[in-house]
Amino acid sequence: MDKIPEPTIERLFCYYRCLEKEKNSLGQSHICSNLLGEKVGIKPALLRRDLSFLGHMGQKGKGYNRFLLKKALAQFIGLDQGWEIALIGAGNLGKALIKYDKFKEMGLFIKNIFENDLNKIGREIGGYIVQNVKDLKETIENKEIKIVIVATDDKDIKDVTSQLKQTNIRAVWNLSSENLDLGDDIIIIKEDLCCSLGSILCKINK
Amino acid sequence: MDKIPEPTIERLFCYYRCLEKEKNSLGQSHICSNLLGEKVGIKPALLRRDLSFLGHMGQKGKGYNRFLLKKALAQFIGLDQGWEIALIGAGNLGKALIKYDKFKEMGLFIKNIFENDLNKIGREIGGYIVQNVKDLKETIENKEIKIVIVATDDKDIKDVTSQLKQTNIRAVWNLSSENLDLGDDIIIIKEDLCCSLGSILCKINK
Repeated sequence: MDKIPEPTIERLFCYYRCLEKEKNSLGQSHICSNLLGEKVGIKPALLRRDLSFLGHMGQKGKGYNRFLLKKALAQFIGLDQGWEIALIGAGNLGKALIKYDKFKEMGLFIKNIFENDLNKIGREIGGYIVQNVKDLKETIENKEIKIVIVATDDKDIKDVTSQLKQTNIRAVWNLSSENLDLGDDIIIIKEDLCCSLGSILCKINK
Repeated sequence: MDKIPEPTIERLFCYYRCLEKEKNSLGQSHICSNLLGEKVGIKPALLRRDLSFLGHMGQKGKGYNRFLLKKALAQFIGLDQGWEIALIGAGNLGKALIKYDKFKEMGLFIKNIFENDLNKIGREIGGYIVQNVKDLKETIENKEIKIVIVATDDKDIKDVTSQLKQTNIRAVWNLSSENLDLGDDIIIIKEDLCCSLGSILCKINK
């Protein structure tokens, strides 16, 4: 298969979300690229190109079978199974993520919370006890966790990096403002909230 | 000036952040593109191209003057002034954003919080009283607010959209999973947390 462009990967997920949201609403068995594109805010031609990575899904004049398309997207993305995710950082942002119902609806469960702040270790958030970040390696091995969310203070990043390096995780969603140096084998997606808001400022200012 | 590419705008902000973080540390007056690039995780050639949008900032053999570069970036982005921002949605995510110190450090102040959940209106979060979303227009006009963050439940999006349409805001940072239909004059940056985590899954699964 051709290498899938990064933005396509993100959009595939949005198509899935859109179909998932509508699963309980009565409607046509098929959806055309114009309508699906309108719902997710993507131009139909781009949407058709994105979905072509799944194989031949669309039928001329009918569009996509909603059920089959959703199933194919779920399999492609990996949403046909549940995922246990670890979170490092039990601050305000971390707490919001733990309580974010949409993750659970998609089968993404943040059940393992880690901190290196002794004041936070042992506390309960969303039904789970905050653990010492020093226990990260053991928990990740035992539970075969592949994804870690980093939402710590910047000052803790060095410590967190050294803990993460000892594990065999596959991917990190880095919500801190620091870069994580974990080598080339681990997928890192960085999302700096300040950068998002900053780029809005920049656009207004132009 | 040439139109600035979207990713450049986001990176310009990251360069600013990096210089801002180091302002109190002793060091050289200048920084070369290799070092600044390493700190922000951007290749030096790309960094130099990004910074070329600010005019001729770099000196051959010396690099960029940290103070002047930071000042130029702040002016370019609009961080040489404070910004009052409105937030719609006082749920877990909204609360985390209100308490997010990094916004304040950058002069971005979330002082106006709105809800249409009667149970939340009137409560205090981070020193500010949650207002009725029906008062959005008046507050935005009185305080000349240009940026609104939307972090509401999806079910409230229609109501929020109609409230936002009555205002003369310039930009929205949409953290809900719904699209906002506000016409072409308002800058909308959508950031769906589920899409970020979903694209990580997709990458692991490939």
